[in-house]
Amino acid sequence: MMEHPENNEEYKGLVVNEGVENLPQVNPYATFRRKKRTLTAEEYVDGILKGDITLLSQAVTLIESSLPSDQAIAQRVIELCLPHAGNSIRLGITGVPGAGKSTFIEAIGTELCHMGKKLAVLAIDPSSERTKGSILGDKTRMNELSVEANAFIRPSPSAGSLGGVARKTRETIVLCEAAGFDTIIVETVGVGQSETAAHSMVDFFLLLQVTGTGDELQGIKRGIMEMADGIAINKCDGNNVERAQAARVSFKNALALFPPTDSGWKPYAVTCSAVEHTGVKDVWKMVEDYVRFTKKNGYFDAHRTEQSEYWMFETINSALLGGFYNNPKMEQLTEEYKNRVLNNQISSFIAANELINAYNKER
Amino acid sequence: MMEHPENNEEYKGLVVNEGVENLPQVNPYATFRRKKRTLTAEEYVDGILKGDITLLSQAVTLIESSLPSDQAIAQRVIELCLPHAGNSIRLGITGVPGAGKSTFIEAIGTELCHMGKKLAVLAIDPSSERTKGSILGDKTRMNELSVEANAFIRPSPSAGSLGGVARKTRETIVLCEAAGFDTIIVETVGVGQSETAAHSMVDFFLLLQVTGTGDELQGIKRGIMEMADGIAINKCDGNNVERAQAARVSFKNALALFPPTDSGWKPYAVTCSAVEHTGVKDVWKMVEDYVRFTKKNGYFDAHRTEQSEYWMFETINSALLGGFYNNPKMEQLTEEYKNRVLNNQISSFIAANELINAYNKER
Repeated sequence: MMEHPENNEEYKGLVVNEGVENLPQVNPYATFRRKKRTLTAEEYVDGILKGDITLLSQAVTLIESSLPSDQAIAQRVIELCLPHAGNSIRLGITGVPGAGKSTFIEAIGTELCHMGKKLAVLAIDPSSERTKGSILGDKTRMNELSVEANAFIRPSPSAGSLGGVARKTRETIVLCEAAGFDTIIVETVGVGQSETAAHSMVDFFLLLQVTGTGDELQGIKRGIMEMADGIAINKCDGNNVERAQAARVSFKNALALFPPTDSGWKPYAVTCSAVEHTGVKDVWKMVEDYVRFTKKNGYFDAHRTEQSEYWMFETINSALLGGFYNNPKMEQLTEEYKNRVLNNQISSFIAANELINAYNKER
Repeated sequence: MMEHPENNEEYKGLVVNEGVENLPQVNPYATFRRKKRTLTAEEYVDGILKGDITLLSQAVTLIESSLPSDQAIAQRVIELCLPHAGNSIRLGITGVPGAGKSTFIEAIGTELCHMGKKLAVLAIDPSSERTKGSILGDKTRMNELSVEANAFIRPSPSAGSLGGVARKTRETIVLCEAAGFDTIIVETVGVGQSETAAHSMVDFFLLLQVTGTGDELQGIKRGIMEMADGIAINKCDGNNVERAQAARVSFKNALALFPPTDSGWKPYAVTCSAVEHTGVKDVWKMVEDYVRFTKKNGYFDAHRTEQSEYWMFETINSALLGGFYNNPKMEQLTEEYKNRVLNNQISSFIAANELINAYNKER
């Protein structure tokens, strides 16, 4: 199990410390800085294709870096890994905090490793900052899984725009697949727009639910249920079994009222207990059934192609919009116009037109 | 009832034909062109505020025009109408073709007119072309409503980008409200993305459903049900009564499983028969209850403010993206890169970056 590279002994062997830390700082500008020896993209790719987890981890760190020099290498690494990527099942998992996502991923992940699969667990959580213990950031939550040799757990890229965070996770999938991981789990918290992003990069999207007094849906965002290819009702254990089974029937009836999916697959609900490891295999069976079904009717490949297209356009759009919204002058002006719109002093459309005119002059 | 201005006698009085049609055309460039006398924005607004339907209709035609000179006047008209707008209930109605939308709008519209309300019926259908009988385009479908003096029926702006079509409908609402219409219905077909656009400009979003053999959801897009503030199960008449009532119970149970709405309102389902005019008042009661409920908890105004903000950003974004996608050179290049992405020859992200670089050089 490979964690964040900085905590890893093996990794340190690859870092050539050219500077010295903790020198008395007379002039801070004169302080030597710790510098890594930079590998070439080809060296990273060689390592990744051999399944070298250390180099995989370092390459993911480059993907997550905002330094242009790191990005240049990262993009080259992705390009070279691309022909070796794609051979995996990508499973998205969402659910509100409290649904037991970590425990569930531990349970299903351990099962998968014991089945001989190589599993990478990634996350999308734009609100995360590593220091704050984001989803998957707190490794202590996944003790059991993290000791599996075939599991690679990587926390969410740290705070940033949703598009940026999601793009990095999407790129990390390419590298993991090239490194031989045949099962990818992408975790999100079911409270924001990360679900749409996760949904656009996985084959199967699982909604993890808990039963309770009817408040179980309180935290989850509307629209997510209709994205789900399946629902797993967790915590079907102890006193909760009856309620969980009743919930399964309710969801079954509700899902029957939903419009058909593009895949032709009919989503259904199963119960499980991540704590007692019961029903977890049923969830995986559902995923496998789905994969078999959609590979047969052609949807699996068509969907992946659609997703590639989606990410190309998504990235173009982010760049086009970013030019405007990340421009400090436009940011200030937009705020001013927004307030005039909110006070009904100007129409939304006129405000937008004047802002665009200002932007075109600005450039 | 005012229809499309070209069909209207009153309208013709305002058109000064300065040219003569059907002259033998020796040189087509020398042909006199029919020319309208252009009113000033202030003249349009004076008329609109007096409830002059002819001038309202003409101003809407300016909104729908793509001529820059027309747009300049239209934007000024909107700006001047804005302080007089907002005083209405805006009801969005969606449902697949066959759900009986036209008949339902006739039925509820006639009821509303008899209650003394002034009703404007608009539509969003980007696929529409007036000549092809788009939604609301075919006036013969609304014979009953179109003779009501207090009803203003306007077909969807003709084919164009969804953003453009929706923006025009949104702007038309401002003018209708300034003209004294206190009830606005926006119709969409439940098959595309028009629902999101309609949803973002109405107070209450109604999903019109029909009962049947379970195929009733076949045409409707996933995600729409979760947008609905209420569901009306139409065609609850004749042999269909029992099925419609059973469907109401099913939807009731399904809706209870949905996460709570931002408004705090709990959507529910009612049955009705547009043909027999039964239950239609219950639908309107639901809308009124909703308005009362959300005005009390502050959501009504907060939601409208949010929508204004949405439209400002939506319009900015359309302009930013339009610069790229409407550029013929970029269109060709994007197609080339897209094919390379689809053939797995290049990553989505690298393709996007190279396209953006090309675009920045191009400008």
